[in-house]
Amino acid sequence: MPTDSSTPTTYVDPFPPAGDDALLARAVALRPLLQADAVQRDKAGGRPVAQIALLKQQQLNAAAIAPRYGGDGASWVSILRVVRELARSDGSLAHLYGYQHLPLHTVLAKGTEEQQERWFSQAARDQWLWSNSGNSMSKTSKAKRVAGGWIVEGFRPFSSGSHVADVIHIAWEDAAGARLSGLIPADRAGIVIEDDWDGIGQTQTGSGTVSFHGVRVRDDEVLSDGTSPLSPFESVVSLLQQSVLANVFIGSAQGALDEAREYTVTQSRPWIHAGVARHIDDPWIQRSYGDLYIRTLAAAELAEDAAAHLDRAYALGRALDAETRGRVSIDLAAANVYAGETALDVTEKIFELMGARSATRARGYDRFWRNVRTHTLHNPAEYKKRTIGAWLLRHPYAPLGAYR
Amino acid sequence: MPTDSSTPTTYVDPFPPAGDDALLARAVALRPLLQADAVQRDKAGGRPVAQIALLKQQQLNAAAIAPRYGGDGASWVSILRVVRELARSDGSLAHLYGYQHLPLHTVLAKGTEEQQERWFSQAARDQWLWSNSGNSMSKTSKAKRVAGGWIVEGFRPFSSGSHVADVIHIAWEDAAGARLSGLIPADRAGIVIEDDWDGIGQTQTGSGTVSFHGVRVRDDEVLSDGTSPLSPFESVVSLLQQSVLANVFIGSAQGALDEAREYTVTQSRPWIHAGVARHIDDPWIQRSYGDLYIRTLAAAELAEDAAAHLDRAYALGRALDAETRGRVSIDLAAANVYAGETALDVTEKIFELMGARSATRARGYDRFWRNVRTHTLHNPAEYKKRTIGAWLLRHPYAPLGAYR
Amino acid sequence: MPTDSSTPTTYVDPFPPAGDDALLARAVALRPLLQADAVQRDKAGGRPVAQIALLKQQQLNAAAIAPRYGGDGASWVSILRVVRELARSDGSLAHLYGYQHLPLHTVLAKGTEEQQERWFSQAARDQWLWSNSGNSMSKTSKAKRVAGGWIVEGFRPFSSGSHVADVIHIAWEDAAGARLSGLIPADRAGIVIEDDWDGIGQTQTGSGTVSFHGVRVRDDEVLSDGTSPLSPFESVVSLLQQSVLANVFIGSAQGALDEAREYTVTQSRPWIHAGVARHIDDPWIQRSYGDLYIRTLAAAELAEDAAAHLDRAYALGRALDAETRGRVSIDLAAANVYAGETALDVTEKIFELMGARSATRARGYDRFWRNVRTHTLHNPAEYKKRTIGAWLLRHPYAPLGAYR
Amino acid sequence: MPTDSSTPTTYVDPFPPAGDDALLARAVALRPLLQADAVQRDKAGGRPVAQIALLKQQQLNAAAIAPRYGGDGASWVSILRVVRELARSDGSLAHLYGYQHLPLHTVLAKGTEEQQERWFSQAARDQWLWSNSGNSMSKTSKAKRVAGGWIVEGFRPFSSGSHVADVIHIAWEDAAGARLSGLIPADRAGIVIEDDWDGIGQTQTGSGTVSFHGVRVRDDEVLSDGTSPLSPFESVVSLLQQSVLANVFIGSAQGALDEAREYTVTQSRPWIHAGVARHIDDPWIQRSYGDLYIRTLAAAELAEDAAAHLDRAYALGRALDAETRGRVSIDLAAANVYAGETALDVTEKIFELMGARSATRARGYDRFWRNVRTHTLHNPAEYKKRTIGAWLLRHPYAPLGAYR
Repeated sequence: MPTDSSTPTTYVDPFPPAGDDALLARAVALRPLLQADAVQRDKAGGRPVAQIALLKQQQLNAAAIAPRYGGDGASWVSILRVVRELARSDGSLAHLYGYQHLPLHTVLAKGTEEQQERWFSQAARDQWLWSNSGNSMSKTSKAKRVAGGWIVEGFRPFSSGSHVADVIHIAWEDAAGARLSGLIPADRAGIVIEDDWDGIGQTQTGSGTVSFHGVRVRDDEVLSDGTSPLSPFESVVSLLQQSVLANVFIGSAQGALDEAREYTVTQSRPWIHAGVARHIDDPWIQRSYGDLYIRTLAAAELAEDAAAHLDRAYALGRALDAETRGRVSIDLAAANVYAGETALDVTEKIFELMGARSATRARGYDRFWRNVRTHTLHNPAEYKKRTIGAWLLRHPYAPLGAYR
Repeated sequence: MPTDSSTPTTYVDPFPPAGDDALLARAVALRPLLQADAVQRDKAGGRPVAQIALLKQQQLNAAAIAPRYGGDGASWVSILRVVRELARSDGSLAHLYGYQHLPLHTVLAKGTEEQQERWFSQAARDQWLWSNSGNSMSKTSKAKRVAGGWIVEGFRPFSSGSHVADVIHIAWEDAAGARLSGLIPADRAGIVIEDDWDGIGQTQTGSGTVSFHGVRVRDDEVLSDGTSPLSPFESVVSLLQQSVLANVFIGSAQGALDEAREYTVTQSRPWIHAGVARHIDDPWIQRSYGDLYIRTLAAAELAEDAAAHLDRAYALGRALDAETRGRVSIDLAAANVYAGETALDVTEKIFELMGARSATRARGYDRFWRNVRTHTLHNPAEYKKRTIGAWLLRHPYAPLGAYR
Repeated sequence: MPTDSSTPTTYVDPFPPAGDDALLARAVALRPLLQADAVQRDKAGGRPVAQIALLKQQQLNAAAIAPRYGGDGASWVSILRVVRELARSDGSLAHLYGYQHLPLHTVLAKGTEEQQERWFSQAARDQWLWSNSGNSMSKTSKAKRVAGGWIVEGFRPFSSGSHVADVIHIAWEDAAGARLSGLIPADRAGIVIEDDWDGIGQTQTGSGTVSFHGVRVRDDEVLSDGTSPLSPFESVVSLLQQSVLANVFIGSAQGALDEAREYTVTQSRPWIHAGVARHIDDPWIQRSYGDLYIRTLAAAELAEDAAAHLDRAYALGRALDAETRGRVSIDLAAANVYAGETALDVTEKIFELMGARSATRARGYDRFWRNVRTHTLHNPAEYKKRTIGAWLLRHPYAPLGAYR
Repeated sequence: MPTDSSTPTTYVDPFPPAGDDALLARAVALRPLLQADAVQRDKAGGRPVAQIALLKQQQLNAAAIAPRYGGDGASWVSILRVVRELARSDGSLAHLYGYQHLPLHTVLAKGTEEQQERWFSQAARDQWLWSNSGNSMSKTSKAKRVAGGWIVEGFRPFSSGSHVADVIHIAWEDAAGARLSGLIPADRAGIVIEDDWDGIGQTQTGSGTVSFHGVRVRDDEVLSDGTSPLSPFESVVSLLQQSVLANVFIGSAQGALDEAREYTVTQSRPWIHAGVARHIDDPWIQRSYGDLYIRTLAAAELAEDAAAHLDRAYALGRALDAETRGRVSIDLAAANVYAGETALDVTEKIFELMGARSATRARGYDRFWRNVRTHTLHNPAEYKKRTIGAWLLRHPYAPLGAYR
C-alpha cells in the first residue's frame, strides 16, 4: 500500500443540497451560524431562542402552509430536506422544526375551514413555531366541559418544543376516555413548562413535561370531537413523525461525518504502526469512511423516495384511503429504521477514525451519538420491521394509530 | 403477541417495476418463463440457448443502440432495470444480458463511425448478443501483425457469454505489451470455447476460457490502436461493469425474497415453541422479513440513483471529463458495494425464515447465494470502499482503469 | 503500508488440539485420511462406510460408555472435541459421530440396568454406531401392542445416520398419543431406509426418511413406558443435541479457515490495485483473517466451557434436578447460537479472502457453507436467544422438552 | 407468543465471580459501595480519593507483588478479574487499578534486586497506588544528567492515575533520543498534575498531562539505561496494557447489562403495540438480552483464557522468549478486540431494551458507552486484527513494541 502523497483537494460536500430547492437553500444559509456554537448549546441545553429566530428570519416555519394563506405550499420532500439540513448542525433544532408539522397537519386534517383560515394565515404572517403537548402514549390530562369550552388539568410528558413555541397543541381525555385536542397560544394562562427535560441528547428540544392548571380551551380552538374514528388522512401524523425522526437521524449522521472528516484531514495522526505518513492514507481509514458514506447515502435516498411517496399520497387530502396510506407507511417505516441504525453506527464509529484525542468534552463530537441514541428510542425499529414484514407476508396493513 | 388470524392477502410485488418503462415491461413479461425451470438450468449449467432466444424475441438486446441504427436508445437506468429484473429469475442470464453492454460501449467509445454504423445496424437488426473475451487482469493472448490484420494466439479466462454470443470482443497484447482489441463473429475460425466454467454459481454464464488458435482479426475489426491513453469515456466500461454486477446482486436478492416469501406463506410451519398458529405470525419472521426488505429496497434505490447519474454523465459522450466521470464512479461504487453485501445477506438468511425443509437440492434456493457469492468475488468491496473513502478524504479520484 | 517481505513461516495450527486428550488424539490421527477425498464425498452423498470404519478402527464409538462395560468413560468435553475435530474435515461424519450419543444417553437415562449391561457391552465390543429415527417434531409412526412387544408402522423424517448405523433408536406414538421408543438392530425386518436425503449440505448424513413396515420391537428393547414425565436427566438429550450441533459448526468454521488459509498463502494473487507483492501482505486480508480467527476462537472457548458445565451436571446422573439442568442449558444455548452465527459468517467470507478463482465446484470450498447453512436450520438461534434472555430477565427456566 | 405470567425469580448474577478466588472476593465486596454514587462521580470527574482508599483498605493494590515482599503473588487471571469486577461499577477505578501494574511490571522486568526489594516491600506495606506518566507515543520530556541523577523537564500526556497515585513512573528521552524512565514519589518537587483531562468518558482517570519542572530523579530511581533493546519480558507491559483494557471493556459491558436488566425488570413498560402485559415478556426484549449476554460471556471467556496463557508465559520471567511471548500476544489481541467491540455494542443497545425514559442524565446509563468509547480508542482493533491475521498467514510475530 504505497502512500499517496497527493495534496488533499478542496472541500467537497458529499451530500450536496438539491440545487433547485429554494426552501432548502434558505436553510443551508444558516449552516455556519448554527455550527458556530453548536457544542456550547448542546452543553447548555435550555431554549434555542436565537436559533428559532433565525428560522423565522429565513421564513422557514410556514413552508407547509398553502400559498393562499401566505405559506410556501412546499412539498414534504422539501420540508424534510430542511429537517435533514438543520440536523447536520443541530439535531435539537431540526427536531423542533420538523415536529411543528404534526399539529399543523392535524389542523389540516381535522380543523374547520374557519380554523384553517384563522390559524394558517396568522402562522404564515408571524412565522409561528408550533409545538405539541399531547403525547399519545400517556393519558395524564383531563378536562371538564364548561360554557364555550373546556378546562384542562393534568400534564403531558415529552412535549417537545413547548418551551419555545408560539402555539401548543394540547390533548386530553374526556370523561369517557375519548381523546380531544386543541390549539392554544403558548402563553395561555395555566400552561406551565416544567423545564424538566433531562435527556442525554437532543438537549435543546425541551421534551419535558407541560402542566395544565385550569387551562381554558375555547370551543373554536378544539380540533377533535373525540368520537369520530381516526381517518387515514388524520393518521398521516404518524407518518410525519416518522419522517421527521428519520431525517433528524440522517442529518445527524451527515453532520457527524462532516465534522469527523474535517478533523481527520486536519488533525489526526497516523497510528504508530500504520506505516503511512498521513492518517488519510491509511487503507483502514479510507475503507471505513467509504463504508459510512455508503450507508449514509443509502439512508438519504430511502428518505427522499419515501418522502416523494408521501407527497403523492398527501395530495389526496381527506380523500386518502387506508390502502394508499398503508403502502406509503411501509416505505416510511423502512426509511426510518434504516436511518436510525445508520446514524447510530456512524455517530459511534467516527471516533475510531479521528483517534483518541477527539473524544473530549470540549470537542463535543459525542453530541451526535447522544442525540441519535435519545431520539431513536421513541420509535422502536423492531416494531417497524415487524410492520413491514407482516405486509410482505400478506397480512393486511396494521390498524391506523400512533407510531404506525 | 396475539396471533393475527387475518387471511393472507393476495400477492403484492414488493419491488414493482416502474410503470412507465416499456423496455422493462418486455423483460417482466419473461418472468414466468424464466422461473419455470430456473432450478434445473442452474443444475445443468451449460448454455441457456432458449433463454437467449427469448431475449431476442422480446427485442431486448438492442436497447442501448441508438435509434438511428435501429435500437431503442434506452437509458442506462432502463437497461439496468432489465438486468435486475432478469436476475430476479436467473442471475446467469442477467449477467449475460448486462455484460454485453461492455463491448457495445467500447465500440461507441473507440469505434470509428463506420464501425458503429456497420455493427450497430446489424446488431439491432439481428438482436445480437455480444460477449467479451478480454479479461483485463490477464495478459495471456498475443498477436502478430499480418497484412490487413492480426493473427491472435493464446487464451483469455473469465470470458462470460462467449459460449452463446453472436459476436466476441477479444483482446491481446502486442509485442510492446500494449492492449489491443477487436470485435469478431463468434464463429470465426480458431475460436475455441473451452467450456471449462466450473463456478459454484452463475453456472450458465460460461465464464470460462476462450482459446485463440490463429484467430484472424481484420483491421476494420480492430478497436484500439494500443497507444492512446484510456479516455474518461472509454473507461466508462468499468462503470458499466460495476453497474451490471450491482443489479445482478439486487435482482438476486429480490428473487430470493420472492421465492422465500412464497414458501414461507404457503409451506413453512411455526417453530415448535413459537406459540403461534402460523409461521407468518411469528414476530421473529415478520421482523426478519422486514429487515431484509429494507436493505434490498435501499440497494435498489442506490442503484437507480447511481444509474441516473451515469446517464447524465454518459450523455457527454467522448467529451466526458475525468472529474465528472470520477464523481459518478463514487456513487456507482457505493451502489455496487451495498448491493453485494445486501444480496449475500439476503440469500443466506432466507433459509432461516423458511425452515429446515427448504434447504434441499430439489428446491434449489441455494442457487441465489451461490450466484451472488460467485459474482461478488470479481469486484472486491474493500477496494471500492477505499476508493470512496479516499475521495471523501479529499484525495483526487483514482486513475482511470479497470474496476474503478 | 510497506510490503512485508518476510518468508512465510511453517504451518502452525491455530486451533491446536488439547495435548492431554488421548481420545481426541485418536481422532486427530484421522484428519489426513478424512481430508483426502472430502470434496468428492460431499458431491457423492450417500453412505460414508469407509469413514465409519475408520471411526471404529480408532475405537472412537464407545467413548461415552462406562469403563465397566468396556468403554472409555470419556467426558463430554472430550467427546465434543472429537466432534469438532471430525467436522474440521467432514461435517457429515462429525454429525453422525456426535448424534449417536443421543440414543446412547437415552439408554443411560431410561434403560434398565439389564438393558444398559446388554447394549453397552455389545456396543463397546463391536464399536457400534448408533442412530436415531424418532424426530420429536413429527408424529408419523404408530404401533400396536402384540404379545411380547410392538409392531411399528409409519415413518420418521430426519433420521440421520440410520443408513450406516448398527442400531437404530426408533420412536412411535401409542394409541393415547404417548411417545414410546426402542432400540433395535438396523437390519431388523421391516426397516426401510428411504435414501431420500436431498439436503444442500451435510450430504452424507443420510438425514432422510426411515419407513417402518411392521417392525417388531420386543419388550426388552423398549425404552419408554410412555407415561412417565420427562425427567431432567432424560431431557439432557436436548443439551447433547445442541452441543453436537455447536461443535459441528465450530469444526466446520475451523476447517474452512484451514483450507482458506492454505489457499491464500499458496494460491491467491493480490488484487490489481493492492499495491502489495503478495496477497498475504494486504492489510485487508490480514485484518479479515484476524477477525474470523477471533470469532472462531471465541466460539470454541464458549463450547469448551459449556461442555465442562455439562460434564459437572451430568455427573449427577438421574439425580440431576431441573434447576441445575436449566443453568447448564443457558451456556449451551449461548455456545450453540454463537457457533452457528460464526460458522455461517466464516464459511461465507473465506471466498473473499481467497479470490474469484477459489469458487469452483472442483475446489468444493462451498461445502462448508452448505453444511453449516443446512445444519443451523435445525435449531433456530432466535429461540435460543429468547430462552437466554428470559432467564436473564428472571423468568423460570423453560419447561423441559425438545430443543431446550 | 402467549404472555408468560410467571413471577420474576430472584436476582441471579449472570456473570458469577469464580468461587475460589479470595482476591476477587475482596473486590466483589466493594460493589455496593462503588455503585452507590457511580453516576455522580462520573459527572464530577476529578479524583476518586475515597474509592482509592477502599482499594487500599481491601488490600487490593499489592496483589501482583510477590509474597516475599508482603504481596499476594496473585495470578494475572485473578488480578484481571478484579479489574473486570471493578469496571462493572466504575470503569475509571478499574482503569486506575489495572494500569498500576504496568509500572509495577517494569520494575520486575528491569529493576535491580535492590530496587525491587525496596519498592515492592514499601508498596505492599503501604498499599501504594502506582501510575504512569510516560506515554510511549509522545516524546515530550527530556532530561539532563546531573550528579547522582537526572533533571527532567517537559510533559507527558495521557498520564492516567497520576492525580491520585503514590508513585509515578515517568519517562524521558535522553540527548540521543533513547527512552529512560524512573519511579518517583508522586509528591516529588516539580511534578505538576495539570488536571486537564477532558474525556467524554473515564472521567475519573485523570488521564491528562503531567508537567515536569526540574523534576529530580535519583540514579537509584532510574529503571532503564536507555541502551538495552526491549526484551520479550519487558515488553509484556504491552500485553498487560491490552489485558487491562480488555477487562475494563468487559466489566463495563457486564455493568451495563446489570443496570439495564434491573431497569427493564422493574421500570420498563411494554411498547404500545407489543401485545404483552410486561416488557420482559416481549420476545424482542428476550432475544436481545440473550444476544447481548452471549457476546458478553464470550468476551469474558476469551479474556480468562488469554489471561491463563499470560500467566504461563509470565512464569518464565526474564527468560521469556519472543516466540512464546508472540503466541500469547495473539490470544490477548483477540480478547482485546472482541471485548471492545462487544462492550461498544452492549453499552449502546441497552437503551433500546430499557426504553425512552431511561436515557436521562440523572440515570447516567450513558456513562458505560462513553467510558468504552473513550477507552477503546487507545488500542485500535484494526491493527490488532492485522497482527492476528499476519500470524495466521504465517508471517513472523510483529517486532516487540508498544501496543503489540
